Amino acid sequence: MNSDNDTLVAADDLTAYCVAMLVKLGVPSDEALLITDQLVEADLSGVHSHGVVRFPIYIRRLEVGIFNARPHITIVRQTRTTAVMDGDNGMGQLVCRRAMELAIAKGAEGDPAWVAVRNSNHNGAEGYFAQMALAHDMIGFCFTVGGINHVAPWGGAEAMLGNNPFAVAFPAGEELPVILDMACSPAARGKVNVAAARGEPIPEGWCTDSEGRPTTDPYEALKGFVLPIAGAKGYALTTTIGMLSTMLSGGAFGRDVTHLYDDFKRPQNIGHLVGVLPIAPFVEVDEFKRRMDKGIRDIKGVRRRPDVAEIFLPGEREQRLLIERRKSGIPLAGGTIDELQAVGAGYGVSLRLAADARQGACSDCGE
Amino acid sequence: MNSDNDTLVAADDLTAYCVAMLVKLGVPSDEALLITDQLVEADLSGVHSHGVVRFPIYIRRLEVGIFNARPHITIVRQTRTTAVMDGDNGMGQLVCRRAMELAIAKGAEGDPAWVAVRNSNHNGAEGYFAQMALAHDMIGFCFTVGGINHVAPWGGAEAMLGNNPFAVAFPAGEELPVILDMACSPAARGKVNVAAARGEPIPEGWCTDSEGRPTTDPYEALKGFVLPIAGAKGYALTTTIGMLSTMLSGGAFGRDVTHLYDDFKRPQNIGHLVGVLPIAPFVEVDEFKRRMDKGIRDIKGVRRRPDVAEIFLPGEREQRLLIERRKSGIPLAGGTIDELQAVGAGYGVSLRLAADARQGACSDCGE
Repeated sequence: MNSDNDTLVAADDLTAYCVAMLVKLGVPSDEALLITDQLVEADLSGVHSHGVVRFPIYIRRLEVGIFNARPHITIVRQTRTTAVMDGDNGMGQLVCRRAMELAIAKGAEGDPAWVAVRNSNHNGAEGYFAQMALAHDMIGFCFTVGGINHVAPWGGAEAMLGNNPFAVAFPAGEELPVILDMACSPAARGKVNVAAARGEPIPEGWCTDSEGRPTTDPYEALKGFVLPIAGAKGYALTTTIGMLSTMLSGGAFGRDVTHLYDDFKRPQNIGHLVGVLPIAPFVEVDEFKRRMDKGIRDIKGVRRRPDVAEIFLPGEREQRLLIERRKSGIPLAGGTIDELQAVGAGYGVSLRLAADARQGACSDCGE
Repeated sequence: MNSDNDTLVAADDLTAYCVAMLVKLGVPSDEALLITDQLVEADLSGVHSHGVVRFPIYIRRLEVGIFNARPHITIVRQTRTTAVMDGDNGMGQLVCRRAMELAIAKGAEGDPAWVAVRNSNHNGAEGYFAQMALAHDMIGFCFTVGGINHVAPWGGAEAMLGNNPFAVAFPAGEELPVILDMACSPAARGKVNVAAARGEPIPEGWCTDSEGRPTTDPYEALKGFVLPIAGAKGYALTTTIGMLSTMLSGGAFGRDVTHLYDDFKRPQNIGHLVGVLPIAPFVEVDEFKRRMDKGIRDIKGVRRRPDVAEIFLPGEREQRLLIERRKSGIPLAGGTIDELQAVGAGYGVSLRLAADARQGACSDCGE
């Protein structure tokens, strides 16, 4: 993930930059901090595809007013255990967080609770929201409709579905929580861009051309579609995640989903569904955590392939990296840094880089 | 799916055979009918891997007493919106149905409800249980831990996870309901057996050898492991489904899962998690169904690949086939018929075949 072109940035400096920028664009400072926390956590965790690499498009959408910097988020309808939330076209990081806070509050009395959200926006990595449930001894869920239609229905030759992401988080005891956070394609489209830039073929199973035929040519792939994982199964899965995320709330689904990067006229009306499953009604929380710890340890202790040093649980590497990078800093790609600085320049905001930060230089001097 | 060796059997005749057999093995007749309904529905839907092909192992387990023919299913613990159910080692079809009935009853007042199950058994196709919610205008969920550990944790060289299945069912209006029902591998292990029998290689991505190395050799694959879909993602998904199915209830997970076909000493303690999400608290049911219908029609109307005649939603083909086969009969493989007749012979129960049933003969005479 890191390369010689990466530059180290301290998490606090990245946070300061993002908050300053969001405030310049009219976001209240407390909310700017909440939004930034999720973005920086993605980069801390190594999930760079959902970290500050998205910041320039967010700023662009704030600039043209197609994100609402000061949303009035409302609960449209609610019961003791459910709610429909309208995000008022606010940033997805803020809206989805509010939704999860509401689900947790509703679940606090021991009921499963779900909040369906509409009029939200791209919300970055889903795991962040699912894991909010952990401190409350609940299993957390987050489903979201993707902000770009990359995927053709199975047999189709037209991108009409997102690569819809979802997350499930389980608390554990002495072990790290288990956090699934995935979308429905084998590889993010960004990797196709990288292959095209290098003139390298892409693996089979990643993409089709514009007629829906399998291709390993990255240029044809960029005119075509992202393939879902395992073909028809991944199509069924992304359809399901998309329907969960939108049908209860009235978020945009399928043909009605606009393009995060190409359409600056229509708000996206992104939908989420977040939920909690409190543990205590089912089993004493300590016993649940003992069960989790045993399952985790059994998996980690499994006989390994000769070339494999350690088995990881879902989300384990990300959580470990997060702890490590809080100390060591976040390696960001040179291109990302340049873009952030360019975006910041117009507002007099610059991103402070770590002293002696070139990793390439550090490796050269043997550190 | 059909071949010249298939024999047509009427659904009613298949039902009569299964009920008679279960009753001979001590299952009460009303419960035998419920169990059979789910198995026959799988064959009607073309999901033969989870239909009566499993009947011989079920009978064998009833014979040796490792299935409880007359379980006393109990609710161990419950609240208004949750329950833990103990299946008393009854057949999974019965226990999981009772759990879903309970979830639906709890959801009837408009709350999301979940029932976690332990001491159950192999329950066939999950979609059957999820779709029970549809008539009640609820979204239905069913998660189950698989009854055989075929899958190695990612990087592992030891099968310690099931190919865990799950289902989500959405009601629609004029269109057919959308029913996702999938497990976490690209291909069922049964397909590897078929390839081995034919001496044909298997596709890349299906299996590893016993050291966890990818292989296309079906013989090596049978000594090895089933690969999850999309590698680490499928591993994360099957781990998640397994944890959902067992951690709340105390069902067996990972290393504690015994083998459906090889272990006749220890009850399997299979876990399920079933749940409902009632629609009315979120949105008028008619409006929800209009949203679903629009989404479904948009997908079905998408531009198609030149070689594709129709786009199907998840579960659509299965539901159509079910209607068709109720009239035309169920084509069962010759080997399956032979096995059912052999199992039945010892009990004086025979499966009536449809008159003039050999499909091969019919094709020969031009019908």
